[in-house]
Amino acid sequence: MSETSPFAPRTSKAEIEEGLGLAPKFDSKGLIPCIASDVESGEVLMFAYMNRESLALTLSTGEAHYWSRSRGELWHKGASSGHTQQVIELRVDCDQDVVWIKVQAAGPACHVGYRSCFYRVAERDEDGALRLAMTEASKAFDPSEVYGDK
Amino acid sequence: MSETSPFAPRTSKAEIEEGLGLAPKFDSKGLIPCIASDVESGEVLMFAYMNRESLALTLSTGEAHYWSRSRGELWHKGASSGHTQQVIELRVDCDQDVVWIKVQAAGPACHVGYRSCFYRVAERDEDGALRLAMTEASKAFDPSEVYGDK
Repeated sequence: MSETSPFAPRTSKAEIEEGLGLAPKFDSKGLIPCIASDVESGEVLMFAYMNRESLALTLSTGEAHYWSRSRGELWHKGASSGHTQQVIELRVDCDQDVVWIKVQAAGPACHVGYRSCFYRVAERDEDGALRLAMTEASKAFDPSEVYGDK
Repeated sequence: MSETSPFAPRTSKAEIEEGLGLAPKFDSKGLIPCIASDVESGEVLMFAYMNRESLALTLSTGEAHYWSRSRGELWHKGASSGHTQQVIELRVDCDQDVVWIKVQAAGPACHVGYRSCFYRVAERDEDGALRLAMTEASKAFDPSEVYGDK
């Protein structure tokens, strides 16, 4: 990680939306939302936040780094589980306040044990009531074996 | 939209993560992040927020409704541009604080004129400096014709 900021300054709306400088916007907490999808299937795997340091590390190392809001610390995805994410492509949205990464994942994304965090889909039952249905038949790993019982 | 809440109460962590009740978590501003992707290509089209009403309307009408943070109002996507989004599938993540919708879009998602808001990818130039490169050759529509000059 270089000592100077790897990011461009945020200047005009036109420059941010139509320019080619990477000028991410971090919110009042210093965070930017990040969508991670599987580069092959296109499936959204997870959604998390990055701060300036984790975005810079993601770009310099090629592995996804997030900011854990619950633990209040830099989060190198897979550091404890081994389920790292190699970043194949990193995009920003029009106003550069959201990041989308396409990753090659070394293991499931979700701490619950599924490949994707989005393992449930909303459906209506016979009475028209909303229910969730599973999209993955079984867990890809047992969280208690990877993280220990909590 | 029914008068009673269409959502389940948020009870235990186990119920939220492993249960089949749709119990979305809205943040302190009453919002939940939403990722919209193209149901066919898998491309992420946009990222926006929903409040309780827009999520309920999305589910009851089958068309994407968001909450516009800049305008501070309910936002039926496509109401002014005609670029509505038919929701084919709606998922929630493990802790039910993010929504992912797969949509069939009647037009481009981005107000700048591109199909997806994520029309730029980060790359390194010869000197190793970060730059953005366009991923769409040209705009899908002229925003000034759809929205008028602003």
